[in-house]
Amino acid sequence: MATAVLLLSCPDRRGIVAAVANFLLGHGGNVLHADQHVDTVDGVFFQRVEFDLDGFGLDRWDIEDAFREAVAKPFQMDLAIRFSEDRPAMAVLASRQPHCLADLAVRWSAGELPADLRVVISNHPDHRELCEGLKVPYIHLPVGSEPGGKIHQEAQVLAALADHGVELVVLARYMQILSPAFIAAHPNRVINIHHSFLPAFVGANPYRQAHDRGVKLIGATAHYATDDLDEGPIIDQETTRVTHRDDVARLTRAGRDLETTVLARAVRAHLEHRILVYGHKTVVF
Amino acid sequence: MATAVLLLSCPDRRGIVAAVANFLLGHGGNVLHADQHVDTVDGVFFQRVEFDLDGFGLDRWDIEDAFREAVAKPFQMDLAIRFSEDRPAMAVLASRQPHCLADLAVRWSAGELPADLRVVISNHPDHRELCEGLKVPYIHLPVGSEPGGKIHQEAQVLAALADHGVELVVLARYMQILSPAFIAAHPNRVINIHHSFLPAFVGANPYRQAHDRGVKLIGATAHYATDDLDEGPIIDQETTRVTHRDDVARLTRAGRDLETTVLARAVRAHLEHRILVYGHKTVVF
Amino acid sequence: MATAVLLLSCPDRRGIVAAVANFLLGHGGNVLHADQHVDTVDGVFFQRVEFDLDGFGLDRWDIEDAFREAVAKPFQMDLAIRFSEDRPAMAVLASRQPHCLADLAVRWSAGELPADLRVVISNHPDHRELCEGLKVPYIHLPVGSEPGGKIHQEAQVLAALADHGVELVVLARYMQILSPAFIAAHPNRVINIHHSFLPAFVGANPYRQAHDRGVKLIGATAHYATDDLDEGPIIDQETTRVTHRDDVARLTRAGRDLETTVLARAVRAHLEHRILVYGHKTVVF
Amino acid sequence: MATAVLLLSCPDRRGIVAAVANFLLGHGGNVLHADQHVDTVDGVFFQRVEFDLDGFGLDRWDIEDAFREAVAKPFQMDLAIRFSEDRPAMAVLASRQPHCLADLAVRWSAGELPADLRVVISNHPDHRELCEGLKVPYIHLPVGSEPGGKIHQEAQVLAALADHGVELVVLARYMQILSPAFIAAHPNRVINIHHSFLPAFVGANPYRQAHDRGVKLIGATAHYATDDLDEGPIIDQETTRVTHRDDVARLTRAGRDLETTVLARAVRAHLEHRILVYGHKTVVF
Repeated sequence: MATAVLLLSCPDRRGIVAAVANFLLGHGGNVLHADQHVDTVDGVFFQRVEFDLDGFGLDRWDIEDAFREAVAKPFQMDLAIRFSEDRPAMAVLASRQPHCLADLAVRWSAGELPADLRVVISNHPDHRELCEGLKVPYIHLPVGSEPGGKIHQEAQVLAALADHGVELVVLARYMQILSPAFIAAHPNRVINIHHSFLPAFVGANPYRQAHDRGVKLIGATAHYATDDLDEGPIIDQETTRVTHRDDVARLTRAGRDLETTVLARAVRAHLEHRILVYGHKTVVF
Repeated sequence: MATAVLLLSCPDRRGIVAAVANFLLGHGGNVLHADQHVDTVDGVFFQRVEFDLDGFGLDRWDIEDAFREAVAKPFQMDLAIRFSEDRPAMAVLASRQPHCLADLAVRWSAGELPADLRVVISNHPDHRELCEGLKVPYIHLPVGSEPGGKIHQEAQVLAALADHGVELVVLARYMQILSPAFIAAHPNRVINIHHSFLPAFVGANPYRQAHDRGVKLIGATAHYATDDLDEGPIIDQETTRVTHRDDVARLTRAGRDLETTVLARAVRAHLEHRILVYGHKTVVF
Repeated sequence: MATAVLLLSCPDRRGIVAAVANFLLGHGGNVLHADQHVDTVDGVFFQRVEFDLDGFGLDRWDIEDAFREAVAKPFQMDLAIRFSEDRPAMAVLASRQPHCLADLAVRWSAGELPADLRVVISNHPDHRELCEGLKVPYIHLPVGSEPGGKIHQEAQVLAALADHGVELVVLARYMQILSPAFIAAHPNRVINIHHSFLPAFVGANPYRQAHDRGVKLIGATAHYATDDLDEGPIIDQETTRVTHRDDVARLTRAGRDLETTVLARAVRAHLEHRILVYGHKTVVF
Repeated sequence: MATAVLLLSCPDRRGIVAAVANFLLGHGGNVLHADQHVDTVDGVFFQRVEFDLDGFGLDRWDIEDAFREAVAKPFQMDLAIRFSEDRPAMAVLASRQPHCLADLAVRWSAGELPADLRVVISNHPDHRELCEGLKVPYIHLPVGSEPGGKIHQEAQVLAALADHGVELVVLARYMQILSPAFIAAHPNRVINIHHSFLPAFVGANPYRQAHDRGVKLIGATAHYATDDLDEGPIIDQETTRVTHRDDVARLTRAGRDLETTVLARAVRAHLEHRILVYGHKTVVF
């Protein structure tokens, strides 16, 4: 079924829901899902509405203009409109560890992710056969040890992303720091997995930090990447129990399953157009 | 803030959301929460809408009639309307085990449950001091061993519930079987906690059954009581991990915390008017 | 580090722990992990002891005889001894759905599973490229529609398992029923994943059954396969929350992640020699 | 059944398990539970052994000396010995919020906590009737607003604890800061509940901090109180999922259930003599 999704936010006031509903009804729209939220502290209204395109009275290319004129402008809305038939072009960036990359690639291959996985890029050569077995192009872009090697490699990554028309970049335990320019070029379009329950254990070696502190749970956090490392809007988090028996190696192993699960959920929420970013927070419908 | 909640269901068709929204907007209503669901298999639409009564253009006593005329009738809706200021009259029935009863009484006493806890009834004398310490009337109605003792006691329970004008009955590990007549007199108004993950381990001694089967999780299920024992509409469920180390006594102890948590969540969902019963299932918004 | 694992059970009586400890100490053994359990109802003692082979005073091939003579016989023990350097030969059997197979293959490829994945066998051709990308031999054995087709295919599977010297068979959503003879030939060496929280929803279409009952959690169960379908000793189970919004398709999708996780945990526990089967139950250390 | 528990730690070397087992066997001891752990990084061995006192060859008052001479001294052990019949004298300190206090008092009253709950102390008068309904003495010690009011009140608390011979102090959302002298007087005998997943959100208003950061899980942490606020050895932690719908008030409500559960588990582990403190970490058997 071909559907459209409206993602909108605006200052909260009376009549928003009625205006959206009347617009859709006026064009013969059949609402499949609707979800809304009001941040009563800041007075902001959020809504996600998914409706059937079959039998809708407007051509899909005319919907945005018509909706802007009739509803979005009067209510001063931020608006995005997505179509289920548009599968975002996605790239996965990975380093040596395969678990998140392999999980995403397998899910994609099995049809679980409504995306077009255009390319996998890694600074390591290791994952080529896995990717090619799943029919995903693999680009190996090593980081040279010469001065400027990192900068040069990032430029190559950016070029490869542009070549493949990538809209969503997933950092699947990619261990290279991205420059502010890279991030700025992809606002809310780079999803990272951090291997701790943020804001605990920011920075390097979170499993070692967790072990040193003697925690009884470890966690993982998927978030949009921003300039401020590990401070981006959180999309999803999960924890799992650990005990004194778990040394750093076992924490790392247990953490891999968490990272995989949380990153996959976050990517799916993004691809299903269920996320609205709001300040440094998210609304995930 | 005084609010009203509309709980409605009807055959799914276009225009329902717009009709509800327009009705509320037409009377100056401010929607605080709205949640909806469509069962696409059976073609049924469900909605819960909570709106502010302050500034609403209709007197609260007139809302139902006006909504029925304007919206519910044309869409053939099942409708219930609730007001946040109406705190349902509640009774808790318990037997010897105190954990669910004590938890509910303490939550109620701390203001967590929007109800009027009118009375606690038990076939055991044990919980009087706890209840009276929390200022809840306690009625001890033992089950006599004479012929008809059970029937006589149930009649006394029914009379006590009627005396106290009880609308919601919570079975907090109450170990007496209720007659079909009792259940029929309180449709979707008796909440029971079963100490297993239904439909596994129906009937007696679920922790022993779980131990005998060697499961690695145990569970608890809150449901509306119906004639069919343990077959009522499920409101909430939860599980917790167990191991070979857990004998029946330890399963029972671990299960107590589950039962307490799940029953409290179910009672709160009911009291917040977030449950719609649909066949032998629930929609919990 | 090369280690040995003793897995033992016997009638409970005084002195077992001392006897085991003294045997190991007498040969200069360094105990790395020890875990024990007493079933007080049936009076059975269980123990798992892992010790360092470096510096141990007996050649590894002599340990079993010496331990039997000194400890196992006097205490009437059931005994198994495993060596960390022996990586069990494993086969994965799959049908059309790839998630469990892909997860196991990727984990194995990343070094997470201490096994020798000899072969993947499927009645579908679909997973060849994935497996070959991970350098795992793939055998496609379709089930013919002619009379006796199923029996013939199972014989081919058995022959392939024998050819590859397989010790552990993992049914990764393999949808063909195995014959009692197949099961009898691999006692406690066939691990199956059932897509429900057993004993709820045995048999076919558990997600549809779960949806029809209106449960608020779904589950998955890994167990050793026995003649009695879905009645084998449970190794691990897990559940996840669902709501009225989850139709059968969404339950199935959410369930896939559960199945994957639970099966991987069970396989790892088996490969790490942490499972003792006891009647139709397991002790998982 | 009367039992004894040995809690011991020492530098790891060969022969510890055999020495402990032989000591117990030599006196006719029947081991009920034994659990051990080796921290391989620091080279420390930990063990908890519970054995039946019935039929044991030593009078309970002689066990410690005999064990020290035969085992603890040669292995340079830290040793504690506990008897199931000794129920630690416990006090609960609370402020205005009742949930943790009520939960502990109800559990104690139901026989779930192997302790002697001697007294509840609060700087608020509110919980008297609840406590007295459960037959627990209640002491109201308000904090005066005069200079030195806090110091004076703490001195009163200390005197009350001494009067009642209290060994274990549970801070059940007690909002007064304890002085270093108070903490020093009760090493590893003050259990606190912090309403966040430590080390995230130390200090005041963790639910507000969590809301501001936009986390998707909240947590609670039970730990031994030390001079360093929120830095004490962690005993137990738990998290629960939250969403954008949860404002600070709803986070606080959801957190109450977490706090209650985690604190009760930690107190039970302490009372069952299952905790060994090790640096600023715990081993919880």
